Amino acid sequence: MAPKAVVLCSGGLDSTTCLALAAASGYECHAVSFDYGQKQSAELEAIKRIAKQLGAEHHLLELPKMGFKQSALTEEHIQVPDYTGKDEVPVTYVPARNTVFLSIALGLAEVLGAQVIYIGVSLVDYSGYPDCRPEYIQSFENMANLATKAAVEGQKVSIHTPLMHLSKAQTIQLGHRLGVDYSQTVTCYQADDTGAACGHCDSCVLRKKGFEEAGVPDPTRYA
Amino acid sequence: MAPKAVVLCSGGLDSTTCLALAAASGYECHAVSFDYGQKQSAELEAIKRIAKQLGAEHHLLELPKMGFKQSALTEEHIQVPDYTGKDEVPVTYVPARNTVFLSIALGLAEVLGAQVIYIGVSLVDYSGYPDCRPEYIQSFENMANLATKAAVEGQKVSIHTPLMHLSKAQTIQLGHRLGVDYSQTVTCYQADDTGAACGHCDSCVLRKKGFEEAGVPDPTRYA
Repeated sequence: MAPKAVVLCSGGLDSTTCLALAAASGYECHAVSFDYGQKQSAELEAIKRIAKQLGAEHHLLELPKMGFKQSALTEEHIQVPDYTGKDEVPVTYVPARNTVFLSIALGLAEVLGAQVIYIGVSLVDYSGYPDCRPEYIQSFENMANLATKAAVEGQKVSIHTPLMHLSKAQTIQLGHRLGVDYSQTVTCYQADDTGAACGHCDSCVLRKKGFEEAGVPDPTRYA
Repeated sequence: MAPKAVVLCSGGLDSTTCLALAAASGYECHAVSFDYGQKQSAELEAIKRIAKQLGAEHHLLELPKMGFKQSALTEEHIQVPDYTGKDEVPVTYVPARNTVFLSIALGLAEVLGAQVIYIGVSLVDYSGYPDCRPEYIQSFENMANLATKAAVEGQKVSIHTPLMHLSKAQTIQLGHRLGVDYSQTVTCYQADDTGAACGHCDSCVLRKKGFEEAGVPDPTRYA
């Protein structure tokens, strides 16, 4: 029986590449996505199709919205800014988002008997999110291995971040080799209901540049 | 303006004492409780009354049930056992529960501008839950201070566990001095719909013993 992995999936380019890599590595994959009150819901539709394409179980979980506030991704009155390239925590930061996502994934992993959790964070294209840094991930893993019955009984959990040291271009090349259908992914912070991208937010600019540098045709649909 | 605290509240004796202590310490308290699929819902009714008595804001948040399985507290087919006093992880353990609770509290704290989170875990009456140990709490706090924008910008968060080194009797004496109305609290793992206790599960036995040792009249209603 294949070992199981829980894969955090946003429907975007990075997490889809993670899911493809986990599947190619022989894991029985459980793709987990969250409704946390994000303004654009095209990503939640995307992940359903992607999980199906990649043969993963898909779990869409609804979270209480109260903690996920004060972010351009969740509040109508905060606009998603155009790309600036500045090295500060952007207004698209969502309070404790990765911590909540990883915590829920930790519980699911214990219930499923999975010892691996994938999350598609990257240091190279780090746009200032504290909960994407390697020291944060390592610290979460340390905590997780003190938290659960499974860990106490020797079934430790490992947080896999295979994209941590890859540029966007390298991630795209990896996914391209794995046969990822990037036309299905939604990266844009303010995609319209059909999943079409704005082309000028942080996410769009980094993605576009990534395809150019990777020498891979960009299948993104722009609005 | 009073500093704010987020207080994890189950409606039980320990977390109610924490809430009373946080309020007495001058915090503007935000009592947070969760519907995570627990079989007995009397505790969720209890916490509403308790928060009101103690002048706290109350937030009841609904969590996805999928991760909180394989526990006697959530699965109808797993019976809550009688008290054994054994030093092992009991079947009332819920996968990653405190980690999910603290993570949601962390996001709320950031949104509210609170730098303190209270959780009523105790080492002395530790009945084998890994996520009640001081090394786990310290590790969560370390992780939390790498996770958030607030922490990166200098507003670190502190996880307060004032009951960690108190026996149940000492906790009851503390709450008694603070004027806590323990008749409102529901400790039993399988309380009936009115909040009446079974009298023989782990929680009931430890609570009963606590009142006896504390020399405080036990207001618990038994079924």
